[in-house]
Amino acid sequence: MKIDLNADCGESYGAWTLGDDSALLEVATSANVACGFHAGDPTILRETCSLAVEHGVAIGAQVGYADLRGFGRRSVDVPGADLTADVIYQIGALQAIARSVGGTVRYVKPHGALYNRIVTDEAQAAAVVEGVLAAAPDLPVLGLPGSAFLRRAEAAGLRTVREAFADRAYLPDGALVPRSREGSVLHDPDEIAARVLRMVADGTVEAIDGTEVEVAPDSVCVHGDNPSAVAVARRLRTVLDGAGVAVAPFTR
Amino acid sequence: MKIDLNADCGESYGAWTLGDDSALLEVATSANVACGFHAGDPTILRETCSLAVEHGVAIGAQVGYADLRGFGRRSVDVPGADLTADVIYQIGALQAIARSVGGTVRYVKPHGALYNRIVTDEAQAAAVVEGVLAAAPDLPVLGLPGSAFLRRAEAAGLRTVREAFADRAYLPDGALVPRSREGSVLHDPDEIAARVLRMVADGTVEAIDGTEVEVAPDSVCVHGDNPSAVAVARRLRTVLDGAGVAVAPFTR
Amino acid sequence: MKIDLNADCGESYGAWTLGDDSALLEVATSANVACGFHAGDPTILRETCSLAVEHGVAIGAQVGYADLRGFGRRSVDVPGADLTADVIYQIGALQAIARSVGGTVRYVKPHGALYNRIVTDEAQAAAVVEGVLAAAPDLPVLGLPGSAFLRRAEAAGLRTVREAFADRAYLPDGALVPRSREGSVLHDPDEIAARVLRMVADGTVEAIDGTEVEVAPDSVCVHGDNPSAVAVARRLRTVLDGAGVAVAPFTR
Amino acid sequence: MKIDLNADCGESYGAWTLGDDSALLEVATSANVACGFHAGDPTILRETCSLAVEHGVAIGAQVGYADLRGFGRRSVDVPGADLTADVIYQIGALQAIARSVGGTVRYVKPHGALYNRIVTDEAQAAAVVEGVLAAAPDLPVLGLPGSAFLRRAEAAGLRTVREAFADRAYLPDGALVPRSREGSVLHDPDEIAARVLRMVADGTVEAIDGTEVEVAPDSVCVHGDNPSAVAVARRLRTVLDGAGVAVAPFTR
Repeated sequence: MKIDLNADCGESYGAWTLGDDSALLEVATSANVACGFHAGDPTILRETCSLAVEHGVAIGAQVGYADLRGFGRRSVDVPGADLTADVIYQIGALQAIARSVGGTVRYVKPHGALYNRIVTDEAQAAAVVEGVLAAAPDLPVLGLPGSAFLRRAEAAGLRTVREAFADRAYLPDGALVPRSREGSVLHDPDEIAARVLRMVADGTVEAIDGTEVEVAPDSVCVHGDNPSAVAVARRLRTVLDGAGVAVAPFTR
Repeated sequence: MKIDLNADCGESYGAWTLGDDSALLEVATSANVACGFHAGDPTILRETCSLAVEHGVAIGAQVGYADLRGFGRRSVDVPGADLTADVIYQIGALQAIARSVGGTVRYVKPHGALYNRIVTDEAQAAAVVEGVLAAAPDLPVLGLPGSAFLRRAEAAGLRTVREAFADRAYLPDGALVPRSREGSVLHDPDEIAARVLRMVADGTVEAIDGTEVEVAPDSVCVHGDNPSAVAVARRLRTVLDGAGVAVAPFTR
Repeated sequence: MKIDLNADCGESYGAWTLGDDSALLEVATSANVACGFHAGDPTILRETCSLAVEHGVAIGAQVGYADLRGFGRRSVDVPGADLTADVIYQIGALQAIARSVGGTVRYVKPHGALYNRIVTDEAQAAAVVEGVLAAAPDLPVLGLPGSAFLRRAEAAGLRTVREAFADRAYLPDGALVPRSREGSVLHDPDEIAARVLRMVADGTVEAIDGTEVEVAPDSVCVHGDNPSAVAVARRLRTVLDGAGVAVAPFTR
Repeated sequence: MKIDLNADCGESYGAWTLGDDSALLEVATSANVACGFHAGDPTILRETCSLAVEHGVAIGAQVGYADLRGFGRRSVDVPGADLTADVIYQIGALQAIARSVGGTVRYVKPHGALYNRIVTDEAQAAAVVEGVLAAAPDLPVLGLPGSAFLRRAEAAGLRTVREAFADRAYLPDGALVPRSREGSVLHDPDEIAARVLRMVADGTVEAIDGTEVEVAPDSVCVHGDNPSAVAVARRLRTVLDGAGVAVAPFTR
């Protein structure tokens, strides 16, 4: 049994600090590094990539909507050509930042509202795929199993990586329960660890209505901006290590 | 006799258009493409790089202060570490954008207030040099002969390219007359062409006080945002071609 | 017969110029001045308000999404509390700007994608109404007849002003044909003038499918960013003046 | 003996929290509320003004450079006309925000690098004064005694309020020790309280070289973004209350 733990990082901005990247990167094996559009300024991104290199954590470009104010959590009707160009721009920016500290961008993962939107929005999903193809066709993409994004990425010849969420509740169809709904985010480290262990062992998770959902993840996400993210990640790592699961970057 | 003509391009933003890139790129041989900090959004940059590729014009990353409102013309006290990270970010972003349309970033040129500031500001000059070294140590940098920037770039092992300005008046020490002073920008295409021909043939230009300044440029800049930029560039190209000067990218 | 002609103004930004405010304000009687979120920086806004005062044109606050890159034309899922605060902020900012040049904000009109969204989006319509109520309950609001926005504004006790569009095609239900569809924007000044005259005289307009739509406008909008806006507005004004229609701010 | 305690508030932004406004406003008597240019988004500003109203704390508009990334701590060469317009815009925006929660903007205080720059920069000092005069000539301005800003504000007929800094070291000429120098910020609550008590009682403070500086403050600033700000403010308040000093807004 093998799994990758990915975590959102580099989400501070200027004088504002968010999350504890240093602690998270001690337990995560892949770092979804913001690219400056929804969070992260170039200085922060450089420090984050440097930390990731130091901890042997794989660096991913977490592309998002250009929306600092909303932290990329507000869906935006970005026309396809703009979204494609935005994705290219963000990937390239992080590639140079990573390179400058001896690292390499190893994958791409959309963020927040963009991530959620391209589960079903075919036009934006196509635009993101086109951006990855144009900027870095050799990079795998992380996404929700069954999403328009992963389906189109696969069809376009990109390597796709199935992701599950450690601290998010699931709908019966495999979608995430929207953050606006009660119970959408889990907080208990032990419950979260048990869910992830089941995901890894059986490939399934219990949806919010009690039904079983197939997830079979290659990588499990622990959110960096969740106040309990570090505790959750630590507990998860301990449980997974204890159960003999090999925790390592999916890129290896 | 050989010279490169460089022009500022990609300076539109969203719904706002500035300059006539299409016309400029028919006469210029190097395109200083904005990187989104002082002008240019990812869509615009992609279109501009595409145009440059189509015209066989060399693409340069024109890095600037993060100042859309001021078009990068307002000096900002950016700390060194931030400026270095900003330069890396901008270069990487444009590299991916250029790559996505079959092009390659061939050089780096600072823009506007940053360009002027690092003529004398040692700390910011060092920060920009560090950024280029970290992002793309193989790329030459354009700058003002005698500037702190070119001196430090050369000392750091970067290839330096001496630049002169077709439509700007010079101070006796080789610095540009600040835009705030009358007579800082020249508008007459014939006068400009004659000045450039002298720069190419003799390596000199007449300063605003009538003295002779050594410039010996590898590249001559025609500003893209000057309303007469296209007319100036066309006239220049005609005069240079007529005088048997080989007009070609310095990168060749 | 009486009508107001309103036009989008103050949509330049920094070094970028858009529209010909000076010419437009010679024919329009109400100026929808951008408030810095989708277009217009404080300097531009001040100049625009100054022009409006000079021409005796009524100043309106054109509140929009915070989206310079998309010129406010991309719908954004802004939560209600944020949208309300954004509307308050923009109105207040323009009130001070107008005051500083001897003017007064006389009305509020949402811009672009926000305008279109609150035709049907009840939550965002309610948020905008709440913002106007909180910032300036004495100001009338311009909107599309039959829209959720005007209905909620009226219910909340705000004075509502029915608006029609001179250069936009209509759907049979009174909504505007989306800009993405062919034929959505009219360009022929004479056709536009004839349509407006009918709106004023009969209160109706012909929809894109040939049916008749009731509009009965208090104010007719001529878009400032349409390249033919000035020609359209001039022709309209001439036709209306010639037909004996009193063209004056609805605020009088 | 009477003194006002002012504190920087409203400096969070979107998902990023900075400072503990709720705790600070229990001890401060004047709140320097950011206006969205260097920190604070409209939602945050509204919440902050609401808190200030609730605690009976006077609301001030803390105008700053448009520099979220640098938190307004980077000096920017903003031309006078732009700076004046920016000040007007910010004051107006906060006035509407304050009004929307039953409050009123009672004074203006420049922030960060702008505050420091207009201690000596006559052009920017004049531009800020012009902005206050144009937006709200009845509002007093807080500034450093002896600064170009206060001198020009007084000459222009604005009411000026002398400010001292509880947690900042002074140069012998009454200027603040730059943050880049060691010892520029004091952290010990008792030392800070003792210094402020002396300021209030004797009107003086000991400079970093041991000399005595005349400050005679009407208001003493406790920085909201200093991690120890709340502890400092609480200790200060206790010491001042204990010494029989009346702690109240200078606006009363």
